[in-house]
Amino acid sequence: MRRWEEAIRQVTPYVPGEQPGGENLIKLNTNENPYPPSPAVRSLLKEMDGGNLRKYPDPASAELIEALGERYGLGTDRIFVGVGSDDVLALCFLTFFNSGRPVLFPDITYSFYKVWAELFGVPYETPALDGEFCIRAADYVKENGGVIFPNPNAPTGLYLPLAQVEEIVKANQDSVVIVDEAYVDFAGDGEGMKAAEGTSAVRLLEKYDNLLVVQTFSKSRSLAGLRIGFAMGSSRLIRALNDVKYSFNSYTMNMPSQLLGAASVRDEAYFKETVARIKATRENAKARFRHLGFSFPDSQANFLFVSHPKVQAKMLFEALKRERIYVRYFDAPRLENYLRVTIGTDEEMERLFEFLEAYLKEG
Amino acid sequence: MRRWEEAIRQVTPYVPGEQPGGENLIKLNTNENPYPPSPAVRSLLKEMDGGNLRKYPDPASAELIEALGERYGLGTDRIFVGVGSDDVLALCFLTFFNSGRPVLFPDITYSFYKVWAELFGVPYETPALDGEFCIRAADYVKENGGVIFPNPNAPTGLYLPLAQVEEIVKANQDSVVIVDEAYVDFAGDGEGMKAAEGTSAVRLLEKYDNLLVVQTFSKSRSLAGLRIGFAMGSSRLIRALNDVKYSFNSYTMNMPSQLLGAASVRDEAYFKETVARIKATRENAKARFRHLGFSFPDSQANFLFVSHPKVQAKMLFEALKRERIYVRYFDAPRLENYLRVTIGTDEEMERLFEFLEAYLKEG
Repeated sequence: MRRWEEAIRQVTPYVPGEQPGGENLIKLNTNENPYPPSPAVRSLLKEMDGGNLRKYPDPASAELIEALGERYGLGTDRIFVGVGSDDVLALCFLTFFNSGRPVLFPDITYSFYKVWAELFGVPYETPALDGEFCIRAADYVKENGGVIFPNPNAPTGLYLPLAQVEEIVKANQDSVVIVDEAYVDFAGDGEGMKAAEGTSAVRLLEKYDNLLVVQTFSKSRSLAGLRIGFAMGSSRLIRALNDVKYSFNSYTMNMPSQLLGAASVRDEAYFKETVARIKATRENAKARFRHLGFSFPDSQANFLFVSHPKVQAKMLFEALKRERIYVRYFDAPRLENYLRVTIGTDEEMERLFEFLEAYLKEG
Repeated sequence: MRRWEEAIRQVTPYVPGEQPGGENLIKLNTNENPYPPSPAVRSLLKEMDGGNLRKYPDPASAELIEALGERYGLGTDRIFVGVGSDDVLALCFLTFFNSGRPVLFPDITYSFYKVWAELFGVPYETPALDGEFCIRAADYVKENGGVIFPNPNAPTGLYLPLAQVEEIVKANQDSVVIVDEAYVDFAGDGEGMKAAEGTSAVRLLEKYDNLLVVQTFSKSRSLAGLRIGFAMGSSRLIRALNDVKYSFNSYTMNMPSQLLGAASVRDEAYFKETVARIKATRENAKARFRHLGFSFPDSQANFLFVSHPKVQAKMLFEALKRERIYVRYFDAPRLENYLRVTIGTDEEMERLFEFLEAYLKEG
């Protein structure tokens, strides 16, 4: 080994979900939206002036932030944008979690929280989900250096009612509490929820200046290919994020993302329509999975986390793959007999269920 | 102050160069290319399928890396791409500079090296440039935890001949040596250099596996708006960058950047033509500045770093701004009587010189 190799940072490389290529495959493995982005996005792409790409993008992403401010009823000093919500969340760890006290997040949750904590030397504790995969708000009422959890949680899809989110925020006014709402637009209208209940913690922002709500354009807005995430919070929190971000990289959000992202936010009708379609497909899928003997948490996201009492998840994963139907399998304790299945179009789900029916009949 | 505010990371926020808006201004302050990107980029933008944006981009950026591999005669395992060269360079600090020994970079150089060293807790030393603003290769022959310098250097524009770059790389085979070539495509054809001398350290890669060469699409490729930077080195160095990058953020380079960037690399003729125009304009600008009494290092970049014996740089900066001609002023020791002037089109430079002639006559 060369001496310079000894100074290379040691990491466990992450293996991203497969991005299989080719035609006639059904890709239900990365929680992408099955519908294209708004027609307004697609036509703006055609009209965009490529000559302008010679210039640096607006470091403040003003147009995108203004569109988000109008959409969420917040001042532009209360919104921060980044290159996907991973970029925003990693920056939050760096910016807010420097107390030396442990940050709290669930034991089963988005796998990157632990990675960022380790990257930035942030101590952490991981309270266990209960037997039904639910977050117990009481576990987050203790001395800590910050709290972060997704709502709905991943990979379960379970939504924590807003009253319990508020309980956590209220009990932690000495800490920054981050609610990672990558999937929140799909919450509501579920079997266990009324439409009006499917709500973001954005409405709590008026009451709590220690709350940060993070969302993404990758799921409900069909723009995973552009890498856009954003945070909403008090102007003090947003200023801190901007200060840290500008201190080491001023230009991250590129010009197409800023302009196309803004166009997406301004087409509320299309957004509502596609989200409603995915929710309807999800509720139908729940009935179909249940009919086939699967069990699953009552997901409020654009995926279901399903388990079958008679079929090993890993075997089913492999069988689906042979049919060119891609879902996600996690080889981890408590998760190893589940598959995470993204909600596709009705046609894609139909093909999935046709295969499952035949497969389970044979087995 | 709320208790959570105490845990916010303390930083000195960076103030990016002005991005003035409006018509009829001459923007020579951020080293952008005055020419639009290749027509191939602009037409691909029109043809791009917006529907595809619903999917995550290729985390490996294969198409872009293949185009770069063909262009530079390197295997795809020897190229890494990131969201602008700032993203690539910051990741290099995180990945390679963990020995505890000080990293070396010049005292007058790109201001972010110091920022990233402090961000990641990397000790550093800053050997002084000589009286003519030159890097002294001998200063980099000592115990260290890594070496990084731009070539040409910023904000001087001075190019360190390849023989001296090799001297530094050769003397430091226990360290990773990073040559930051943001401006290298503009080197050569200058007053003090023959065309054939204007060369990248890429040609040293075959001999040294501890060398990393970093370049950007923001200057010579007219794509600052897309945020694309890249590193070239031994497969061991590139694998380390990929491991660290994937360990905490898999999807950073968005789909338009990957596709449009590749189209840019494949249009070598346009690249050569616009770079040659900028070099010709620069050499003409040197003669004009000299004629007006300015002095400057013999820049091999797309900017000149000029000083006038009779006019305070700051006053001239303000006077130019009133004319809506924007250049860059650095309020720092040894730099405070210089202005950094980006090479624009011939027409833009003509307007600059007309103003300077009149201004100096009055003064």
